[in-house]
Amino acid sequence: MPDLIEDLRAALGAAAVLSDPDLLAGHRRDEADLCPAGTPAVVVRPRHTDDVVTTVRLAARHGVPVVPQGARTGLAGAANAVDGAVVLSMTSMDEIRRIDPVNRIAVLQPGVVNATLAAAVSRHGLRYPPDPGSWESSTIGGNVATNAGGMCCVKYGVTGEYVLGLEVVLASGEVLRTGRQTAKGVAGYDLTRLFVGSEGTLGVITEITVALRPAAEESLTLVAVFDSAAAAGDAVAEISGQGLTPSLLELLDRVHLRAIEAYRPMGLRTDASALLLAAADTGARAAGDLDRIAKLCAAAGATEVFAATDPVEATALLQARRLAHPAMERLAAQTYPDGNGGLVIDDVAVPRDRLADLLDGVDRIAVEHEVPIGVVGHAGDGNMHPNIVVDRADPASLDRGRHAFDAIMELGLSLGGTCTGEHGVGLLKRDWLAREAGPVGMRVQRAIKDALDPAGLLNPGKVL
Amino acid sequence: MPDLIEDLRAALGAAAVLSDPDLLAGHRRDEADLCPAGTPAVVVRPRHTDDVVTTVRLAARHGVPVVPQGARTGLAGAANAVDGAVVLSMTSMDEIRRIDPVNRIAVLQPGVVNATLAAAVSRHGLRYPPDPGSWESSTIGGNVATNAGGMCCVKYGVTGEYVLGLEVVLASGEVLRTGRQTAKGVAGYDLTRLFVGSEGTLGVITEITVALRPAAEESLTLVAVFDSAAAAGDAVAEISGQGLTPSLLELLDRVHLRAIEAYRPMGLRTDASALLLAAADTGARAAGDLDRIAKLCAAAGATEVFAATDPVEATALLQARRLAHPAMERLAAQTYPDGNGGLVIDDVAVPRDRLADLLDGVDRIAVEHEVPIGVVGHAGDGNMHPNIVVDRADPASLDRGRHAFDAIMELGLSLGGTCTGEHGVGLLKRDWLAREAGPVGMRVQRAIKDALDPAGLLNPGKVL
Repeated sequence: MPDLIEDLRAALGAAAVLSDPDLLAGHRRDEADLCPAGTPAVVVRPRHTDDVVTTVRLAARHGVPVVPQGARTGLAGAANAVDGAVVLSMTSMDEIRRIDPVNRIAVLQPGVVNATLAAAVSRHGLRYPPDPGSWESSTIGGNVATNAGGMCCVKYGVTGEYVLGLEVVLASGEVLRTGRQTAKGVAGYDLTRLFVGSEGTLGVITEITVALRPAAEESLTLVAVFDSAAAAGDAVAEISGQGLTPSLLELLDRVHLRAIEAYRPMGLRTDASALLLAAADTGARAAGDLDRIAKLCAAAGATEVFAATDPVEATALLQARRLAHPAMERLAAQTYPDGNGGLVIDDVAVPRDRLADLLDGVDRIAVEHEVPIGVVGHAGDGNMHPNIVVDRADPASLDRGRHAFDAIMELGLSLGGTCTGEHGVGLLKRDWLAREAGPVGMRVQRAIKDALDPAGLLNPGKVL
Repeated sequence: MPDLIEDLRAALGAAAVLSDPDLLAGHRRDEADLCPAGTPAVVVRPRHTDDVVTTVRLAARHGVPVVPQGARTGLAGAANAVDGAVVLSMTSMDEIRRIDPVNRIAVLQPGVVNATLAAAVSRHGLRYPPDPGSWESSTIGGNVATNAGGMCCVKYGVTGEYVLGLEVVLASGEVLRTGRQTAKGVAGYDLTRLFVGSEGTLGVITEITVALRPAAEESLTLVAVFDSAAAAGDAVAEISGQGLTPSLLELLDRVHLRAIEAYRPMGLRTDASALLLAAADTGARAAGDLDRIAKLCAAAGATEVFAATDPVEATALLQARRLAHPAMERLAAQTYPDGNGGLVIDDVAVPRDRLADLLDGVDRIAVEHEVPIGVVGHAGDGNMHPNIVVDRADPASLDRGRHAFDAIMELGLSLGGTCTGEHGVGLLKRDWLAREAGPVGMRVQRAIKDALDPAGLLNPGKVL
């Protein structure tokens, strides 16, 4: 390994090639709990595509794996290092190269933070919709590598739908350009979409062309309170079945309502079983759309429905939803003190009309496996995050958590769902991907991986 | 070959295995002019996925290529047979298996005609947006295999954006299921999008799960007349740059206006250089949106702008646009009688702000190469179809047509465009794909093809 590090320093300069033990330790993992992680031999901070080419080529020559990392906010362990690897930390490649309002595209390096891009395009009256929970800190490169979702997806779709083209450094060190800068294009196999969501296992993304949209219109928000989570699920199915497409349709269960209220008191109804948060951004028509949603919620059994009367109130509701993750982290820390409390954050998507069954089933699983589980997520997509609270220091608790996790995956698939709606496979879901994709699907994916990375040095052990 | 045909008959029954010479001759090609085509040895009409498996396995055992065909309305030769091949004619696999309004999906066999699906889902208050020019006769399987576009794309996107999952028979005869039936899902590599647009070279699509949308709202239509095509192009760039997203934004040049008016008199302004047809389907707001579009057209130099005052008039305008293809076919037939007149239908997409340059350039190319060229297309996407009129019986005319075609491709790429916006690569654009994708891009595509079809028997010679 010293040879490789010397070669990297000689080629890239000492400032870009870091091997301080604390820094290496700090680049071991993303935010997924309970996934194995190794310690890299070296962290490289490229500034240009050429730096990535050099790194990938030198690593290949030494037979050393390369693990790309963005802001390490992922929740499936896809960015976790393996022992002795070269970590390519892409956060310094953070230039927005072009924003083009006529063609509604932006060209950027992968280290640009989602919120930075959102702010930059908004100055042109444009919008980059994908809004994963980590949007204030996660990078677009990481968003693309994991095909990240978010709250906007119910109306605006996931990251992949906004990726028009990529520059990718392949395992061979060759630079591939995929896609196009035009609104349409069908020239050859869709390599762009192959790299989106491939979690760094097929190549290292070094430039991204994204599609933008005109700025959203004014939006209105409402909240509906339910005394059963299943009734909230039924309301979601009704809203979709009646042809409504809210710009946001989120669900918080009682565990989350209480955790958020304890974390930051906001007047949430902690006696409710579930809360649906809906928004419509259709400008002058938003009030009418929300009115229909309110009626459908009431018909499905909502005990209370109230509209945010002004943007401040609407923002506060959205903020409450955004606090779900830190609030649950604190709940776990309070449940099992001394830093032992942890969350296994699951991610499952089911057909919208099976949402009520999923919510009921997760309740049963929590009881059966004797673990606290809170459920939050993108109800409008049928994409929920059951968050399992575990004691990292107690093997029995971890074991119960793991069994509950598996039971949720099993339930999701049995309802016609998928093992990951938006967090990706990483290390956390490899077995479940194999189950969902089946032997033929795995053989095809493996064949593609082998064709593009025959030595298996790009982010080894992830996805497949 | 007789052995293979006997084996196929024994396995599938004589009715599904056809070798009548006239029928074979009728399955040689799609609608692309000037592409080579061979004569198949046999045409198989599968009814079930198992029939496709049997056919692919038997063909592989005999080392015979398999060419899947839908309605053969393609415009790039992707469905053209090769000599001695098995043609898999998928039109009898035409069952709509499920329409699910809550989850907004439909599950169908590939032989379902686009218009049939559109009508079936409309009875549930839903819409399947992709609307290629051939929608009244083309199959969804063909639409998926070519990632077909249409007039809706400017607002609603192309076929691929509506494909959630596929069942595909691989070259090995294994049955692969890709994707999901949920709104979101990121489990593994995006195999669905890899097969979309792969023109039958990676597998044979036997089932498709598509996403649906709520039925469109009421729409309004306007027409703007320009005395230069470039001014119409400028109007398109302005409309996009101002954040407007019409549901349709089509351009017809003078050659097309005259051809359509000669084909069916509809009162089109045949003295105009170009006509823009725009629609807005935002219900109560459509009038306001169209008003802004009208003002931008006038500012860009439109000599006349008029709105359709009722749905009948709007439908007539749309119908005029739909007649572009048959009208140009007739123009070619009248220009060069005795069945010698033909069209080389090109397909190029450029960034919207280069549309005016493209239109000007095509005019110059027509003069320079002494061939009539009419331009029509999806201006809102920057995706135009220059239609080159040639005399099939005159090698010099064919030669001029081919040179004009190449000059248009060259121009499109030089403007930052792509060699095919929606028709695909097939046989017609292989050289241009290689040029656009570059050697690295071609190597990656070839590696994927080899990984999935090592014997190269699936639709050989197409795309790559």
